[in-house]
Amino acid sequence: MFELGVVYRNIERADAETVAALGPLGSATVHEAMGRVGLLAPYMRPIYTGQQVAGAAVTVLLHPGDNWMLHVVAEQIRPGDIVVAALSSPSTDGFFGDLLATSFQARGARALVIDAGVRDVRVLQEMGFPVWSKAISSKGCVKATLGSVNIPVVCAGMSVQPGDAIVADDDGVVCVPRQLARVVLEKAQKRESLEAEKRDRLAGGVLGLDMYDMRPALEKAGLRYID
Amino acid sequence: MFELGVVYRNIERADAETVAALGPLGSATVHEAMGRVGLLAPYMRPIYTGQQVAGAAVTVLLHPGDNWMLHVVAEQIRPGDIVVAALSSPSTDGFFGDLLATSFQARGARALVIDAGVRDVRVLQEMGFPVWSKAISSKGCVKATLGSVNIPVVCAGMSVQPGDAIVADDDGVVCVPRQLARVVLEKAQKRESLEAEKRDRLAGGVLGLDMYDMRPALEKAGLRYID
Amino acid sequence: MFELGVVYRNIERADAETVAALGPLGSATVHEAMGRVGLLAPYMRPIYTGQQVAGAAVTVLLHPGDNWMLHVVAEQIRPGDIVVAALSSPSTDGFFGDLLATSFQARGARALVIDAGVRDVRVLQEMGFPVWSKAISSKGCVKATLGSVNIPVVCAGMSVQPGDAIVADDDGVVCVPRQLARVVLEKAQKRESLEAEKRDRLAGGVLGLDMYDMRPALEKAGLRYID
Amino acid sequence: MFELGVVYRNIERADAETVAALGPLGSATVHEAMGRVGLLAPYMRPIYTGQQVAGAAVTVLLHPGDNWMLHVVAEQIRPGDIVVAALSSPSTDGFFGDLLATSFQARGARALVIDAGVRDVRVLQEMGFPVWSKAISSKGCVKATLGSVNIPVVCAGMSVQPGDAIVADDDGVVCVPRQLARVVLEKAQKRESLEAEKRDRLAGGVLGLDMYDMRPALEKAGLRYID
Amino acid sequence: MFELGVVYRNIERADAETVAALGPLGSATVHEAMGRVGLLAPYMRPIYTGQQVAGAAVTVLLHPGDNWMLHVVAEQIRPGDIVVAALSSPSTDGFFGDLLATSFQARGARALVIDAGVRDVRVLQEMGFPVWSKAISSKGCVKATLGSVNIPVVCAGMSVQPGDAIVADDDGVVCVPRQLARVVLEKAQKRESLEAEKRDRLAGGVLGLDMYDMRPALEKAGLRYID
Amino acid sequence: MFELGVVYRNIERADAETVAALGPLGSATVHEAMGRVGLLAPYMRPIYTGQQVAGAAVTVLLHPGDNWMLHVVAEQIRPGDIVVAALSSPSTDGFFGDLLATSFQARGARALVIDAGVRDVRVLQEMGFPVWSKAISSKGCVKATLGSVNIPVVCAGMSVQPGDAIVADDDGVVCVPRQLARVVLEKAQKRESLEAEKRDRLAGGVLGLDMYDMRPALEKAGLRYID
Repeated sequence: MFELGVVYRNIERADAETVAALGPLGSATVHEAMGRVGLLAPYMRPIYTGQQVAGAAVTVLLHPGDNWMLHVVAEQIRPGDIVVAALSSPSTDGFFGDLLATSFQARGARALVIDAGVRDVRVLQEMGFPVWSKAISSKGCVKATLGSVNIPVVCAGMSVQPGDAIVADDDGVVCVPRQLARVVLEKAQKRESLEAEKRDRLAGGVLGLDMYDMRPALEKAGLRYID
Repeated sequence: MFELGVVYRNIERADAETVAALGPLGSATVHEAMGRVGLLAPYMRPIYTGQQVAGAAVTVLLHPGDNWMLHVVAEQIRPGDIVVAALSSPSTDGFFGDLLATSFQARGARALVIDAGVRDVRVLQEMGFPVWSKAISSKGCVKATLGSVNIPVVCAGMSVQPGDAIVADDDGVVCVPRQLARVVLEKAQKRESLEAEKRDRLAGGVLGLDMYDMRPALEKAGLRYID
Repeated sequence: MFELGVVYRNIERADAETVAALGPLGSATVHEAMGRVGLLAPYMRPIYTGQQVAGAAVTVLLHPGDNWMLHVVAEQIRPGDIVVAALSSPSTDGFFGDLLATSFQARGARALVIDAGVRDVRVLQEMGFPVWSKAISSKGCVKATLGSVNIPVVCAGMSVQPGDAIVADDDGVVCVPRQLARVVLEKAQKRESLEAEKRDRLAGGVLGLDMYDMRPALEKAGLRYID
Repeated sequence: MFELGVVYRNIERADAETVAALGPLGSATVHEAMGRVGLLAPYMRPIYTGQQVAGAAVTVLLHPGDNWMLHVVAEQIRPGDIVVAALSSPSTDGFFGDLLATSFQARGARALVIDAGVRDVRVLQEMGFPVWSKAISSKGCVKATLGSVNIPVVCAGMSVQPGDAIVADDDGVVCVPRQLARVVLEKAQKRESLEAEKRDRLAGGVLGLDMYDMRPALEKAGLRYID
Repeated sequence: MFELGVVYRNIERADAETVAALGPLGSATVHEAMGRVGLLAPYMRPIYTGQQVAGAAVTVLLHPGDNWMLHVVAEQIRPGDIVVAALSSPSTDGFFGDLLATSFQARGARALVIDAGVRDVRVLQEMGFPVWSKAISSKGCVKATLGSVNIPVVCAGMSVQPGDAIVADDDGVVCVPRQLARVVLEKAQKRESLEAEKRDRLAGGVLGLDMYDMRPALEKAGLRYID
Repeated sequence: MFELGVVYRNIERADAETVAALGPLGSATVHEAMGRVGLLAPYMRPIYTGQQVAGAAVTVLLHPGDNWMLHVVAEQIRPGDIVVAALSSPSTDGFFGDLLATSFQARGARALVIDAGVRDVRVLQEMGFPVWSKAISSKGCVKATLGSVNIPVVCAGMSVQPGDAIVADDDGVVCVPRQLARVVLEKAQKRESLEAEKRDRLAGGVLGLDMYDMRPALEKAGLRYID
């Protein structure tokens, strides 16, 4: 777990078809299907709204103010991957800008999830390269200290293994362990299929209290109504 | 104040006409008319910009990670209400999404103000349901512990009584005590009526120093100009 | 440094032509050209995106919840200036709104950079007056205590002298010392001129590892690849 | 609620004997007896440890960086009171030091609870005057703007009415509404009387799982043990 | 990884002798021996200073405001263990007090590391039960929702596996993966053995610049001395 | 201001006798004598309480996670100096421990003020070496990137020039510009001489309202008493 200066070239990625199907379900539905776990801390925000992506995680561990390993990870990207960048200590510096984005995009990366800052955000939006980050900052980086690529990392409080499925949208970023991706997809699809009908009933004025039959449990818990 | 598991069904709401008139004045003008009090902490932000609403507060006290009482409060909403959700302990979890928004909208709620997180933000914007929150998060909630509805709460550092008038826009959220709503409206309207003329004079190059006759007070306080 | 109640009327401003040329280069490029220093803390964010400005700093030191000196600084603004407002103690109150913006704009100010809050943000956007701030808040201010104008200040963790060049965009705010403005401009332009070619090569699939010839240094540092 | 510039001289205080009995029970037991509400935010910390006090709240609303009203509130202190100071906007400045503490102590105040900073902390400890605060700071205050005394306030996220009972120790600060003080005392004493026996049983190796008979509920909730 | 409602009874613990030897080396030396990784976020602080412990991790995943699983984990404690409690979402509530500490101590637990709050801190100190936590808070917990015991968790930003070695003192908390414990111990002991001599030389006035032979590297990096 | 890789060997230090006299007056009195400016942010806390020191500032600019320059600054320390360490970007890593403290102490340093973390805090206390820092952390540092020594820095939000007088105690850290040290000392001594009498009068029950003759100003400001 604590290897530094190591690049794992061959990782097993979550099944591409499964990953592709998780994307449109969105982070909230997938997170629920996981049993309400897997969400990165909500300080991770998209640098521009309206994006919804899914991909296999290629991980990288960076040191504060040092983006050397982002160049190393670029070579390990395969089409459809999402780079997940963790920090060995907190930093808001701008680790990633339009040049690296051009390179990532050329390699087929679908997005970047980074527990630090990025810059050139206007250009990134023009390029259509989605990023979820902790900060936006002009502050540039040195290239001095080795980190690692494709080791297990903790990104924004969540454990991410190389090859896990990442689902990200305006609500946040969820990590689905590779081995669970298919099961989670099935649960999420089932959840999704029930939502349309629920929405119609609620729109028609039915209360959740009745639709979910909550009144007996609330009464049992001691809820009192006072006029 | 500290009742748990209680729902007050009959609350006195701020006069609807007064509330309606407060909305277009905006949170800054209303807050000034209150004597510069009543503002919720500025970490309360709209999940999408450009909204300006006013309504009577229907309050709810929630526990971290538990949104059971949002279903209970839904039943107490009357057209034009704004639900004000307080937390017994800080939380950024996503307590509210598109299904609850559909239900709130069907009941006539004008907005939600919640000292926690919400999700499905893209859909909420498409629905045109305005929310002011502390966070955006995919993290869902359990339904396990009773809170209360229509009790006095502290939301984002401000005391809110059921029935108070809430004014919210891109600048923040203000709570106007029900009994003061009319007086505050009059003061706010007076303030507003003076602004157009001031703006014209300032646009014409007149300085605030002269328009507000600040020079004598500044001199008396000891301000020195050095060339 | 610690004068209170003083207004310096005559300050030497960074050369206007140099300042004008710094603007389009953007905060990230200018910050790099400075040797990766000069950036204000990344909590300073534009109140609306898409702005890119440069100007000479007119500085003002304010006290928490007291915007009296913003009226005093207004008189010292010359066309093309950017007002840089520092606080003697942290505050998120709304020190600046549409009336002051009208006055600043009438005096020719290009922008405001303030280590506190502002309000009327929708109107400010309609007026096209750019602001970088720490917060947005309806909370208004008193006019009771003297600060100073055009003294050296610390704004968002960065030292700013009156007359320094300020460059601000969606990535953040950089302060370029007046005496270094020309040198920094030249370095920034050189940097910029190299970027187009780099971008083309990266877009064509060349890796930064090769373009920057990083492999030997990585190997020397001990990077290991594992298949 | 939003009166400024008002001093209420006659407030009804929680019964002195009840307050005195609440103190030794401690904030955790009292908070539990309240139904787990009433606690000020945990950023409120004692400036030195080992103190445990209770008293009736004399409230004061202050503005950031302005401690004028602490002199006004001093006159309203009666022996056994605890001054509860709220802020109209967040501040970490040092509002209170050894001179004010000398005055408060001479008036019979038992402690200060302040949602801001204090200074002279070494002398305060030597004097034996307990303070719970958000910060420690040398930064002094002006005396320029009116607040109010003995109005309802929100201190560290909790609503406090003048005359409420305050219980504070190393675990935090709890506010007990005046009208509930006696009931809460009885519940807290009952709780307390059961603790000694529980502690003995747990010390003897009995598990909470068995002592509280939790196993059936855990099993019903679906807990699985895996060897 | 994302199992809820599961208790693993049989975990492999780091070798007891190795763990015992790691303790006196302290968190800083062990963290260095790990290659400067493994440290929990520095907001984890001892509730009283002067403690230095090591033990095998028994992990537990808790939900905000719910300490039910602390009773479940108590049964899994073996003498010499350190309980490491992670949260599914941030919370500062008081999950642990003197009763649970009595139970943990009776089971042989050496300490608690919890990414949340605790209470009864004065009693815990009197009992001599060490705790590292994020907060101190009187706020009590419900017992409503299942978490898990002895699953991998992320505590204060660090991944912890059941059975890992935990080293904690006034400088912080380090997690040493079980499989690496012996290697890390050896490296840490080597480091330690060199420190005494270094300290003597530095105390005698030798500079680190010379002792570590840093001058050539500094010169090569371009350091300039100006008289 | 923005030189990197530079060490100024000859700086003018604040007069030693003046600095020595400032120490016992304490940070609060000195800060008041400065006109309530000069205080570093209150997150700067002593790692152990009860210290009160003053000295001339030797400054150093560090990069996140890199303590190379602390070895460089050690050589520039003269007896009675206080090292003031600023960061180019925020960091809580442990930059300083017992070995560097041994070296600093051998060179005659009186204290360290660092806008980052330190470690070995128990040993530092045993050594009697005072430190004011933002954090305590076991996390060690690399030695890779040049900073500078004895350049102007911003430390914890305050501008510090090499040679300025630093006064630090349990209330915080104040920076007195070298050129103002004597004037500030005189004002601070005058302030101090008046405090004893004031304290006696307040202890005797005289109110600040009367001692400072505040009643007329309060009345003029509109304060109303309500019985």
